[in-house]
Amino acid sequence: MQSSKPFFKLETTSSSSKARAGVFHTGHGDVKTPVFMPVGTAGSIKAVSPRDMIELNAQIILGNTYHLFLRPGCELVNKAGGLHKFINWPRPMLTDSGGFQVWSLSKMRKITAEGVQFRSHIDGSPFTFTPENVMESQRKLGADIIMAFDDCPAYPSSHQEISDSLNLTLNYTNRAWNWLKEHPALYDYPQYFFGIVQGGLFKDLRKKAIEALIELDLPGYAIGGLCVGEPIPEIYEIADYSTDFLPSQKPRYAMGMGTPKDLLQMILRGIDMFDCVIPTRNARNGMVWTWDGVLHYKAARYAKDLNNPLDPNCDCYTCKNFSRAYIRHLFHAHELTVFQLTSIHNLRFFCSLMEKAREKILEGTFESWAGELLKKWEQ
Amino acid sequence: MQSSKPFFKLETTSSSSKARAGVFHTGHGDVKTPVFMPVGTAGSIKAVSPRDMIELNAQIILGNTYHLFLRPGCELVNKAGGLHKFINWPRPMLTDSGGFQVWSLSKMRKITAEGVQFRSHIDGSPFTFTPENVMESQRKLGADIIMAFDDCPAYPSSHQEISDSLNLTLNYTNRAWNWLKEHPALYDYPQYFFGIVQGGLFKDLRKKAIEALIELDLPGYAIGGLCVGEPIPEIYEIADYSTDFLPSQKPRYAMGMGTPKDLLQMILRGIDMFDCVIPTRNARNGMVWTWDGVLHYKAARYAKDLNNPLDPNCDCYTCKNFSRAYIRHLFHAHELTVFQLTSIHNLRFFCSLMEKAREKILEGTFESWAGELLKKWEQ
Repeated sequence: MQSSKPFFKLETTSSSSKARAGVFHTGHGDVKTPVFMPVGTAGSIKAVSPRDMIELNAQIILGNTYHLFLRPGCELVNKAGGLHKFINWPRPMLTDSGGFQVWSLSKMRKITAEGVQFRSHIDGSPFTFTPENVMESQRKLGADIIMAFDDCPAYPSSHQEISDSLNLTLNYTNRAWNWLKEHPALYDYPQYFFGIVQGGLFKDLRKKAIEALIELDLPGYAIGGLCVGEPIPEIYEIADYSTDFLPSQKPRYAMGMGTPKDLLQMILRGIDMFDCVIPTRNARNGMVWTWDGVLHYKAARYAKDLNNPLDPNCDCYTCKNFSRAYIRHLFHAHELTVFQLTSIHNLRFFCSLMEKAREKILEGTFESWAGELLKKWEQ
Repeated sequence: MQSSKPFFKLETTSSSSKARAGVFHTGHGDVKTPVFMPVGTAGSIKAVSPRDMIELNAQIILGNTYHLFLRPGCELVNKAGGLHKFINWPRPMLTDSGGFQVWSLSKMRKITAEGVQFRSHIDGSPFTFTPENVMESQRKLGADIIMAFDDCPAYPSSHQEISDSLNLTLNYTNRAWNWLKEHPALYDYPQYFFGIVQGGLFKDLRKKAIEALIELDLPGYAIGGLCVGEPIPEIYEIADYSTDFLPSQKPRYAMGMGTPKDLLQMILRGIDMFDCVIPTRNARNGMVWTWDGVLHYKAARYAKDLNNPLDPNCDCYTCKNFSRAYIRHLFHAHELTVFQLTSIHNLRFFCSLMEKAREKILEGTFESWAGELLKKWEQ
């Protein structure tokens, strides 16, 4: 079943940058862009319950097909009525295809004409992902947005290697799209398929990728193959270049990005959607993001800081109720609640950064606002 | 400042057992008994946030003076305005005295006339606890109920050893009570001091302890020195014996107990208050308590159990929203949310067991209700 509403509506584009505000409609509600999607790898945002995710206003969360395929298995999730029901998440979800995880996590990876053979990082069991069976897995998982299965080449690679890899990704994407057209959604809401633009740091290959994917007229487009070790300015440059060619009426998603600075820089370059493990991973390791920059909450200088929350300008549960001294104490006392409380804060910060960015874009003041934040965070 | 209301009101005593229902009044609200007090050792219930503790209806929580003294220190908690404010817990609290932890956790323990010398289990630093300085620590922490500093002898010990230890505890208790009378509470609500009945498994010593403590006319009495390795029936026997001599108009607290079965058995023997790490510790290790008995949620037989929550008869957040298959998946996928969700369930189970017990006591049907549960749980 496809909804009668168009999937994505571009609301405004800034007159002084490529920053955009839009909205996409799914069977589980609307998502306003720009949007940050917290990562719930194996069916759980690390240390944060679904109701706390609702409260911090995560509009959409991400699941990893690779992880869910291995454990608990897509069959079980299908029996549960889909991932939303299995994990009790009422809002939109996106699943990635596993292409990146097969490259970054699995113990062995062998690319064949059919697909990719790999061994599980959990127990070494052998599996093959094909464009078709990954779409079947994503049909069973039932996310509102599903991603193409792509090949992720290492950085650095030669033009020839990236070109060959891109051809494989384009072939995979065609096969996936054809399979989806023949195999409708299993649940009573649509699944929107995004193609992934590959091409490494080679502009001609990025352009070729975009032109080929535009031919398919997909619901949305992601920029993939970033954040694999290349310098950050090169990432910005590739994003900036790519959005010149991507259709304005489709959402653009920069996969695996990034820091708050990265998010603002990428919004300036016309990106609408982001995901990253940074907020939860950093929280667990002792670092939180605030409107004034990074704060290392384990530091001795916060041992007696009873009067300030992690971020005085934050409206999250943690900042409304607990001092830096208490959060620091929880960490040093090995109390599990520290992971929950700091993850809630970081996730809320990322979500509220996107809410504020959207507000500023709609007001027409995004560039000066983002510029001031970027300047402050450089210090 | 002492409240004008009497601290404890006994509402009813069963006509067919020693089971009692009562209420105690504190500066942070009333507590209805029988009551289970979740343990928040170092200022946090493991894996559960204060608001989730409120939701699962924990009436009162416990903190450990030993842990808080070492980290973050009672001075800091005092600067925060007391433990309630430091950890953001609006309801009543109890702190124990550290006597048990000095015995069970510290690296070295040397008993002197003044008090107990020990080395921190964290870094080996040397400290001395005296009845006076432990009261001072508890004044700074500011719990609504504070415990006497006692000596905890090992099990088994001879009559002579337990007798000597008891004399020390009684001496300590007298000194603590005198110190408290000379040093009023630091915050604007009263702190109620409980004496601890020691005496091991020797009834003559337990009786001697009770008689001596009754002389002091304390707000409440705890039975200590239990759960140190002795057979469970002996614990029940000592509790049963002790409550024959404890004043009916004062609350009775069995320290460190116990399983749901223990709680029911101890209520039958006239105990009002309990604390134990079992609900949270077992939850983290894979075991939850249900109205039908114990459930090992890691087991393969729950891998596909999508239709049942941990306990179909439980009203906690976890049971209202997640299946056994999902909980099991979270554990095996090493997701931190499993600790939060299972701890919430176990704590809610212990609290609701006490709520139901109280209801049955007030109705006059506690014995048959408890008997049926105990029979079911034996199977």
